[in-house]
Amino acid sequence: SNKMKLFTLTGNEPLAAEIADHIGIPLGKCTVNRFSDEEVQVNVEESVRGCDVYVIQPTSQPVNENLMELLIMIDALKRASANTINIVMPYYGYARQDRKSRAREPITAKLVANIIETAGADRVISLDLHAPQIQGFFDIPIDHLMGVPILSDYFLEHEDINLDEVVIVSPDHGGVTRARRMADRLKAPIAIIDKRRPRPNVAEVMNIVGEIEGKTAIIIDDIIDTGGTIKIAAQALVDKGAKSVYACCTHPVLSGPAIERIEESVIKELVVTNSIQLPEEKKIDKITELSVGELLAQAIIRVHEQESVSILFDQT
Amino acid sequence: SNKMKLFTLTGNEPLAAEIADHIGIPLGKCTVNRFSDEEVQVNVEESVRGCDVYVIQPTSQPVNENLMELLIMIDALKRASANTINIVMPYYGYARQDRKSRAREPITAKLVANIIETAGADRVISLDLHAPQIQGFFDIPIDHLMGVPILSDYFLEHEDINLDEVVIVSPDHGGVTRARRMADRLKAPIAIIDKRRPRPNVAEVMNIVGEIEGKTAIIIDDIIDTGGTIKIAAQALVDKGAKSVYACCTHPVLSGPAIERIEESVIKELVVTNSIQLPEEKKIDKITELSVGELLAQAIIRVHEQESVSILFDQT
Ligand SMILES: Nc1ncnc2c1ncn2[C@@H]1O[C@H](COP(=O)(O)O)[C@@H](O)[C@H]1O
Ligand SMILES: Nc1ncnc2c1ncn2[C@@H]1O[C@H](COP(=O)(O)O)[C@@H](O)[C@H]1O
Repeated sequence: SNKMKLFTLTGNEPLAAEIADHIGIPLGKCTVNRFSDEEVQVNVEESVRGCDVYVIQPTSQPVNENLMELLIMIDALKRASANTINIVMPYYGYARQDRKSRAREPITAKLVANIIETAGADRVISLDLHAPQIQGFFDIPIDHLMGVPILSDYFLEHEDINLDEVVIVSPDHGGVTRARRMADRLKAPIAIIDKRRPRPNVAEVMNIVGEIEGKTAIIIDDIIDTGGTIKIAAQALVDKGAKSVYACCTHPVLSGPAIERIEESVIKELVVTNSIQLPEEKKIDKITELSVGELLAQAIIRVHEQESVSILFDQT
Repeated sequence: SNKMKLFTLTGNEPLAAEIADHIGIPLGKCTVNRFSDEEVQVNVEESVRGCDVYVIQPTSQPVNENLMELLIMIDALKRASANTINIVMPYYGYARQDRKSRAREPITAKLVANIIETAGADRVISLDLHAPQIQGFFDIPIDHLMGVPILSDYFLEHEDINLDEVVIVSPDHGGVTRARRMADRLKAPIAIIDKRRPRPNVAEVMNIVGEIEGKTAIIIDDIIDTGGTIKIAAQALVDKGAKSVYACCTHPVLSGPAIERIEESVIKELVVTNSIQLPEEKKIDKITELSVGELLAQAIIRVHEQESVSILFDQT
């Protein structure tokens, strides 16, 4: 196969360094700056002619800056005659805008797929897309990795947790499949938080389907954003008799009041991955960060060797 | 023809209001917000089905935010069954990245054209593109307006200027055509600032081609960004005996040290248009702002009536 080159933009440089370490090649030379008027300036500082290039860039906050860096980098690599341009997007920004839920709404997750393709990407590697249907928004191949094995392995070896008492909790109906996968790995039962609004303009009722009394609850979600849902869900579980409540997610968006809410909440520990780089002020004691560096490195190697990546998450 | 609807995003709301006033229809209802994680949220709050929609959005600073707002709006309008989506971009961000001047440079101006088309735009109306070749980056029709008539008319009626003493100055070779057009309108001669570097790593020599002694010099450029070129050029003109120096441009990017440099410079007055909205702190006494609202309104009306817009700038 062609020579592999790895580049990072500014989205998550520590993760990119980890990936490069695991693969055992250095990151390619490339600088990403801003002109005086804040326009993005990308300089690829080594030849990529004929190479298979992998660009590491989650489109997390600041999402529009990170996305434009990515598009401009793809354009530069294409014009520099790269053989293939492979995008490693551990976090896919705008994934929640994946359908029209009201009239005249955009479907920005599809727009993002279209403009990444238009820029010239050949392949995308992503992790825990908010909706797996986003794979179908692309006409180029997309490899979809999962954070569940990494999160599960952590809890399997957790000193304070008695696995016989665990229940895996999905915070909504959309997340049941994910909770099921984790429950299989921990050989635990599942529960579902079943929110419903009895009448319009009446407060939501939070019902819990499943056994909670005396259990150690582990809530699993793909994204934790403002922390509102998780804080309320954790309290509801304690009210139903849970002994303790843990939470985990792949993507720690943690915007706005999230850190405060997590601090205040009854959650004992929040386990996240480094798909999104946590700024120092968000690295609080309650949060444990696991790395997806090795998983992404393995996916890149397998893609480059033209092997299936499904082995990375199909093994239970 | 179909019903016309006008929308603005956040790029230049005062200009959009002016355009709507000139056309005599209200701006369409639409809100542009940010989710907690800064993702753009666009809500089109009235039907656009079957309408010819005009979206006013210069992609000035913050360029990546303004561009994403535009793309997401286009997506929303397309899915809401607008008949045509016409983009009014008085300032075209990334226009200066219009060619590869070094190896492995992106051509972001072309990328921007491609993603605007991919999003679903049917037509673009713009003003003084940094390079007219950018018109060819689009496969959809583009109407290219010019600021020269508006800038010229202002100087034609300027109380402090004796038109018999005026010389129009291009600050570089790239701007000579523009200076020529203005000189024709003012019936004045032109001069050119001819920078050259005698040897690599030796300071540029600023030579002036044309008669300056005793003249009122008016420098014309498309964009004034950090103000470096214009400040040095104005000084060079005074050193060559110019009686006074005025400057004008269509797009007041005015980033970084620009305002300070203009204040300090020998420039008596800087005349700009409102293609880019000037924040309050940049509205200094030396700067005069002219409106392109009527010009853009006329262009929109003519496009909508399927008439040629060239009459708006071909008349000398
Ligand atoms: N960045 C965002 N932050 C919060 N909500 C969003 C965001 N993007 C989209 N949404 C909304 O979240 C909803 C989809 O979330 P979900 O039901 O979890 O798939 C839709 O109503 C979207 O309008
Ligand atoms: N936003 C920007 N600010 C300053 N310089 C830029 C910007 N975008 C592109 N350029 C550079 O400006 C040069 C083109 O300017 P010009 O020769 O005036 O067409 C190229 O070398 C570009 O790399």
